[in-house]
Parts: sequence; structure tokens; C-alpha cells
Amino acid sequence: MSASATDAEPASIVIFGASGDLTRRKLVPALHSLMCDGYLPEEVQVVGVARTDMADAALLDRLYEGVMDYARLEPSICERWPEFAQRITYLRGDYGDPETYRRLGATLRELDATRGTRGNRLYYLALPPAVFPTVIEQLGRAGLAKDGDGWARIVIEKPFGHDLASARALNERVHAVFDEDQIYRIDHYLGKETVQNLLVLRFANSIFEPVWNRNYVDHVQITMAESEGVGHRGGYYDRAGVLRDIVQNHLMQLITLTAMEPPSALNAKMLRDEKVQVLQAIRPIRQDDGVWGQYRGYREEPKVDAASNTPTYVALKLYIDNWRWQGVPFYARSGKQLSAKTTEIALQFKAVPHLLFPENVDLHANRLSIIIQPNESLHLCIEIKVPGLGMRVKTVDMEFHYEEHFGEDVLPEAYERLLLDALQGDASLFARSDEIEMAWALIDPLTAEVTPELYEPGSAGPPAADALMSHDGRRWLSIVPQNGDDEA
Amino acid sequence: MSASATDAEPASIVIFGASGDLTRRKLVPALHSLMCDGYLPEEVQVVGVARTDMADAALLDRLYEGVMDYARLEPSICERWPEFAQRITYLRGDYGDPETYRRLGATLRELDATRGTRGNRLYYLALPPAVFPTVIEQLGRAGLAKDGDGWARIVIEKPFGHDLASARALNERVHAVFDEDQIYRIDHYLGKETVQNLLVLRFANSIFEPVWNRNYVDHVQITMAESEGVGHRGGYYDRAGVLRDIVQNHLMQLITLTAMEPPSALNAKMLRDEKVQVLQAIRPIRQDDGVWGQYRGYREEPKVDAASNTPTYVALKLYIDNWRWQGVPFYARSGKQLSAKTTEIALQFKAVPHLLFPENVDLHANRLSIIIQPNESLHLCIEIKVPGLGMRVKTVDMEFHYEEHFGEDVLPEAYERLLLDALQGDASLFARSDEIEMAWALIDPLTAEVTPELYEPGSAGPPAADALMSHDGRRWLSIVPQNGDDEA
Repeated sequence: MSASATDAEPASIVIFGASGDLTRRKLVPALHSLMCDGYLPEEVQVVGVARTDMADAALLDRLYEGVMDYARLEPSICERWPEFAQRITYLRGDYGDPETYRRLGATLRELDATRGTRGNRLYYLALPPAVFPTVIEQLGRAGLAKDGDGWARIVIEKPFGHDLASARALNERVHAVFDEDQIYRIDHYLGKETVQNLLVLRFANSIFEPVWNRNYVDHVQITMAESEGVGHRGGYYDRAGVLRDIVQNHLMQLITLTAMEPPSALNAKMLRDEKVQVLQAIRPIRQDDGVWGQYRGYREEPKVDAASNTPTYVALKLYIDNWRWQGVPFYARSGKQLSAKTTEIALQFKAVPHLLFPENVDLHANRLSIIIQPNESLHLCIEIKVPGLGMRVKTVDMEFHYEEHFGEDVLPEAYERLLLDALQGDASLFARSDEIEMAWALIDPLTAEVTPELYEPGSAGPPAADALMSHDGRRWLSIVPQNGDDEA
Repeated sequence: MSASATDAEPASIVIFGASGDLTRRKLVPALHSLMCDGYLPEEVQVVGVARTDMADAALLDRLYEGVMDYARLEPSICERWPEFAQRITYLRGDYGDPETYRRLGATLRELDATRGTRGNRLYYLALPPAVFPTVIEQLGRAGLAKDGDGWARIVIEKPFGHDLASARALNERVHAVFDEDQIYRIDHYLGKETVQNLLVLRFANSIFEPVWNRNYVDHVQITMAESEGVGHRGGYYDRAGVLRDIVQNHLMQLITLTAMEPPSALNAKMLRDEKVQVLQAIRPIRQDDGVWGQYRGYREEPKVDAASNTPTYVALKLYIDNWRWQGVPFYARSGKQLSAKTTEIALQFKAVPHLLFPENVDLHANRLSIIIQPNESLHLCIEIKVPGLGMRVKTVDMEFHYEEHFGEDVLPEAYERLLLDALQGDASLFARSDEIEMAWALIDPLTAEVTPELYEPGSAGPPAADALMSHDGRRWLSIVPQNGDDEA
């Protein structure tokens, strides 16, 4: 995470699933932008492995289209594509066939000899989860998993398991071949700029930390709202639901980053130690305490079971049993087909202890709101005096918008950050095995079948979610558009 | 200060000095705007007393010009002038002549009978300080100073004394005739909108108060910078200097409002009790600890002594010896002919206790800056992550500008607020006798003759002021234009 431009070491990046969507839309565009921005030394090479029987040129064409369509940098910069294309080797082979790995080993050794990759290998599993164990085992058997002259690291795409048992089983299979410090489990949400800014906001400023606790915070609201439905992902989504799709990974990450103690250093061990401390302190959540919703029309979506009870919305109330947060509810919600697309962390502070302005019976308590996406921004809602005679008070928003300040298109894609970090051996923004398992342990009890309440597409979710808040004398923040666009 | 539109009671406002500049430029325009905005019931009448032998119509013409030139409200609204003019009675007379007060008494009784002013009188001394005692004594002798059927109050313009002894003497003379709760000592700075907003900012928000103390504040900077020279006020200024012109009154007010404890209510007694507590806690300042400057060219200004040592700039370092502020320096400065016109209160917070971002060796500590004038605004300087790979941190400004939010020309003039408060019997924004005397007690030891350091017009003041800060490892904030205009 403390990457600077000169740190990336020579390496071969082996992408399993080279003809797939993730490679075309995310990985190769990210690598290409990194190269154009000067982050990749010439000795970084790409080996694409795929089962697809495709001519080298056809694969390269496909990847080039991906760069043109999805890369962050201006198309004019893509004139450097020919240079980048020369770094790509295409290796056809079946993932279960030892011969594939024998040839991969030979290719890697040849790149070491001719391209200076120095024995360093970054394996990237851009594959469906079912194939993860096969590739991992084969890498082990072929002797490609151990650090030799250089290092070997493996990046594992999400989802990492679908419950605690499967996550444990997968961890065991990975650990049979790779040491934990070789393993980089992706949660691309952690690569997002504003998530990292949350760390800076909390720990590079002295004025927030004194009030970032139970003495001053009334409650915390975390919202991950999507405005779209499941689209073409109905098959996957109907098995996963909002819990596995969003809560276990992204939402838990936002909770831990918001709630954690200051680490003594921002390295992978200390940062993840603090996040795990938060997960350990979360009081077990009962399914009855959650609000479960499904948007009207979900059962008619392609590949969705016509009698599906899969929740597309959840609202949870969490408590973190430690000195900092005892008694402060964390309200977390996520859903599809809501009124706007926005991800927001809001700290609602307590009211002033004593009211000095009797004209103003409805003085609002302060709020710090961090909009993660789209249109990343910070908002501090404070009370000021309305100009004019009398002593009327009004809530105004002191705000900061990244795009206004820094301009558009400067934010690197999450995958750029994560690929560079993996190349640099910094696992801070990747999930550790205990972190993953602990998050699943919290989520598992919530996955029994429920009958979700229907809610209208374009609404703020099911009415029961409002009741959850009003029962506590509180209210959800409005889910409003942030005048920007970004992906989930 | 808790004025609402319906509170002003019927009264006669007696302005001593009706043909003077203050009446024309400030008082009558303020009263006129108050009437137009609906704050003055019809039973509020104005009696202008002056020595000038002038026809009634000539005085009214003069006051009308003042409204046209100086009133806050649009000239079109001044079509209501004829209505306002009918409320004005002109009374010619010498301030030392008992006959003047006999006629004044008769006029006031007649207004009670014909205009419904109900025996309430607000006397306003818009006169040179030398005349204050005469008018006060004559009011007493004429029996006009005591509450009769209604109330009697007296507004005394600044300056209130020129040192502790003269302020005490004046207080004694006023107290011989009026009770303290009848006395309203003007510091028009207290009528300014943003000074009141400082109270709201501090006490209607819960997030600032927890860090508003020695645990989190490194130091406080208060700047009252003027960009102009003494102009036509050379005669007065050369006797007063920056200490009496600005520091004893305005600057001390800003210090007390910034430093005081939360009062239990915002009434005149409790608010001023808290301000006095601060003044009592200020450690005596030695003249040697101040930095004294005089702008180059001051001695050539009209009516200024060619060998004058009057300081036009001062920088002081104060300590407030109480639990909240022990060890936190308050750096206060004021001067004429500086690089810009601005009044600013800045709380410089301490640095973060532990640096988590080793790439950033020059992380800046947070600062909350309150621009009082011109262009009233709030600024919270925080550190955020620079977008892009790496973990670079940058200082940005979360800001709020009153004019952007509320539009132009909505801020009432200080005198509108103060006149209305006096009419409503609210002395919160006026100085109390003990407050005035205590401020003089702090200033008196600084008034011995010094040899001020010359500084260049348009600069930030004398170099010794920078040395005062750099000796403590600190720096003054830049004195920069606030893109607006206002009077001192």
C-alpha cells in the first residue's frame, strides 16, 4: 500500500483465465495503464493461460479491445499497445493437465533467461472458484509454488468460499501449497481510492480521532446501495444473495476500516491484525435482528428461481463490544434496485449536551459523511447561524469533492493498485485467512432461508428497514444520487 | 441577542449628536433598515439632539442622504423614507444647558401621549467621549435617567476611557446616574454577524468542543489586519495607537469569545460572566514580550506627530491560565497598512501523535479557521490522500462561505443588531463595566512609550513578529485577501 513508482520488481505475471472477461475488462487494462504511467519496469512480462483454442493474434486483439474500452487512460496513450503486446505470451492448456504446468515452467524459465524476470512469479486466478483448487494443486505438483531464485505469489479472485466451511476448506487447500504470506485474496473494494483515503482521513488528521468513539458518536450508518437489478448475473446472484455478494466481503471491510484502532504501522500484518480485532469484537448477529428484502420483479429476472427467497436487500444492526464502540449501533444496509447508487459511511455524532439557543428546538447533531462512490467526497454537516437578526440556526455542509479538486480520471482503477501491491509484495489491501473465516463466521448464522419483504424498485428498501431505525428513535439517511458514475 | 421580530417595545430613541457622522452613516440607516424589515413597531420614535443650528428639513435631508448612501437595504426600499422621517423630532440645544433637558423631557412626555412611546427612553451618546459626562449628569439632574412609567437605558459609544483610570472614572460617573443594567457600552465588533456565529459554531455543534482545549490545540492565532493607513483619523490615532484602537476592545473580545467556557445560558449576565472569567485568567503581558511596529510613512500622515512613536502594529503572545488553555499560546496581532484586510481566528491543532504515512514527512496538522471579515467563512484544513498510486497526503480545505450559501447583502449591519438588542433590553453584546476595566488592566502595562520597528506598507508587519513565532517553532498564517469588502 505504500507503493512508490520505483518499487515494482521484475516478474512474470501468469494469468489463469486469459481469455475470460475479468482479464479483458480489468486485468490487462490495469496492467497497460500501469505500464503507461511508468510503474512497470520492462522486465515485467505477462503469460496468459487459457483453455480456449485461439490464435495468438486473436487473443491479443481481444485484449486490445479491452484496453480500448475499459482502460482508465486516454485512448491516445494506447498507442503504446504494440509495446505492451510484445510482453504477452499466450499459453493454451487444460487446467487439470500436468503438461500445461510443465510447459508453463519452461516458458517462465525462458522469460527469466531472455526477459530478465529473475525467477519472480505472480499467479493470478482469474477463474471460476470451482477451478481454484485444481490450479493450486497443479502449481504445487509442478514445483512452481515455492520460492526458488525469486518469489512466487498467488492472487485469488473472489468469492473466497460461500460459507465458513467452504472458506476453511479452500484455505486448507491453498495452505497445502502456498504459505499465507504468498497468498493475496482479492477484495477489489479495498483497492478503491476512497477506502484508502478513509485510513488517511482517520490517521493523518488529529481532530477526528478524539471524537471517533462512543463518547461522541451516537451511531454509524453504512450504506451500499445499487440502483440496478441483478441483470445477467441472476444465476450467480440467486445462490449468493446480498449477504455473500456484498455483506461478507465489501460491507465487512468498510465496518472494520471504520471501527478499527489505529495500527502502529500500515503494513499488511498490523493493518490486518487491527481489522481482525474488530471482527472478533462484533457481537454475533441473529437472523431475526436483520431486515430482509427482495425487490419486486426479482423472481422474473433471467436465471432466477421463480419461487426464490433470495434476499436482494438486508439491513443489519451491529454492536462492537470493545472500549471504543460499546453501545454504539452500526446500522449497515445494502440492496439492489434502490433509489440511487451510492456507498456511504456516516458517523452521526451525539447532540450538544445543553441547548443554548432556545429559538431552535430542532437543532441537528453533527454528521461526518464519507461518500465512497460515485463522486468521492467528504461532508461535515454542522450548525451555523442564519444571517440576520435573531439567533436562528441552520445545518450546512462543509464539503470536499475529490473530482472538483483533482480533476476527472485521475483515480486509478482498483485493480491497478492491487496488481501493483501484489507485485511489490504488499498484502495490506488483501484479505487474510483469519479475516475471511471470521467474516464468514458472522455471516453463516444469517444464511438460513427467510421470507424477504417485497420492496419497490427505485425505493429506499422495505418498510421494515425504516421500522428498525424508528424503533431506536433514529432515521436512515436518504439514498440520493451522488452525481457521478462508477462500478460497484 | 435572542431577538425575534416581535420583541421590540415602543420607545423614544434619543440620539445625542444627531447632526454627526455616526448618526448619518450608521444609526439612522440602521434604524431605517430595521423599520423596513418590520422590526420596529410604529411606536418607536427618534429624537435627534444636536447643537447645530440647522433647519429641521436640512437635518432630515442629511439623514436621508445617509440612508441612501449607507443603508444595507436596496434604495428602492427607501421609498419608505417619508414614513420614517415622520418619526423623527429634531431638538436643538447645548449639551451643558439644563434647558435642553427640560425641553427634551417635555418632548418625550408629548411623544408618550401622542405616539404611544409608553415612557420608554433609549439614550444614545453619538458624541465625542469628552461630552459623555456632561450629558449623563444633565440627564440625571433632569430626572430623565431613572425608570419611571417605562424604562430608561443609555448606549455609550466607544472609546470607553483611554486607560484603566479614565475608564474607572467614567464608570463612576455613569453609575452615579444609571444602574449597570441600564448601561449599554458599544463595541460594534460584537454586533458583527460572524462573532455571533462563533458562539453558534462553538455551542450548537458537538464535534468542536471536545477538541477545543489544550489537549488538542497547539496554539491559537488571531489576526485583525487592515490594508489601509490612518487616513483622516491621524489626530485620534496618534494618541490611541493600535492598542487602544483595536486591541483593548475588538481583539480582546475575539480572544474571550474564542477561549470562554460554555455559559449555561446566552443571556447578558452569564455570557459576560464567562468572558470576564477569561480576562481574569489571562496572564499579565509584559511590554517586552510584544512586537511593536509602525508602517513606513506613518509620521508623514496628516495630523500625526513627525516624531511619533505610536505603534500601528502589535503582535502579542498571551497565555490563559486555566484548565482549558494552560500552556496554549494565543498569538494575537493587529496592524494598519498590511498586505490585506482580514480578521481571522485560527485554531491550530496538534500534529497526529504517530505518523503512519512515512512517505509524507511534512504532514500538516489540522486547522480550523474562522474568517470574520471580509467574506465571512469557515475553513477546516485537513489531510487527505492524493489520488493515484502510492500514499501521498495533501492538505485541503473543507470550507463554507456565508455569501455563497445565503447570497449577498443579507447580513444585517452591526448597528442594526445592537440597536435592536438595546431596544429589547438584551445587553449580551455590550461590554460590562468589569469587562472594560479588566481589559484596560491588561493593556495599561503595554502603553509605555516604545520605539516601534518600521515595516513596509503592504507587508505582513515587522520582521520581529516573524521572529516571535519562529522562536517558538511556529509560523504566522499568511495575510491574504478574502475576496470581499467590508468595513473595519
